[in-house]
Amino acid sequence: MAESTVTAPRKSQLPEPLWRHLLGDNLRRLRHERGETLGETATRAGVSPQYLSEMERGRKEPSSEMIAAVAGALDTTLVDLTLDIAERLITTRKTASVRLSANQSNFALAA
Amino acid sequence: MAESTVTAPRKSQLPEPLWRHLLGDNLRRLRHERGETLGETATRAGVSPQYLSEMERGRKEPSSEMIAAVAGALDTTLVDLTLDIAERLITTRKTASVRLSANQSNFALAA
Repeated sequence: MAESTVTAPRKSQLPEPLWRHLLGDNLRRLRHERGETLGETATRAGVSPQYLSEMERGRKEPSSEMIAAVAGALDTTLVDLTLDIAERLITTRKTASVRLSANQSNFALAA
Repeated sequence: MAESTVTAPRKSQLPEPLWRHLLGDNLRRLRHERGETLGETATRAGVSPQYLSEMERGRKEPSSEMIAAVAGALDTTLVDLTLDIAERLITTRKTASVRLSANQSNFALAA
């Protein structure tokens, strides 16, 4: 497996990333969209830049209060954050399914 | 404030619940839908019934690995769980908005 951070859910055949990685990616993207440094966002959220950096890289498992604080500092809410993460998960799943179907078609053609 | 567990996000005027509470409510609902006891689901997830009970009540901040394990035991995935939580958040927000508008209308009528 290419990534060491994925889990294998029972229902889907496709590997899924972990919650903290999805959350971290999303927080980093939002911060970049605002053109802010780690320090700027972290100060408003009341956390250290080191902590925010670890959150963004999925190294820290943040508490729900911390998620709310950073979301607030980025002018977003839990609902928008959760929706965004869900949408990205669906896109990832679709892309992987298309890739899987394409591989199966190639296999059928080759057989 | 009626609930001590809510945070006040900057963007929305309405209070939002915390991630672990939404997650816990959702896991409990899924388990009940399957008609399972805490012990049955917990055994498959590889956690103690006490731990699962605390997760469901939003008392424990579960790690991403734990979320994946319990989701797997309930035959669901992170994407379905996240989507479900997001949908419920939207419904809650809409209901609260309608209630707010209704109160404002009553106020306008009374004025």
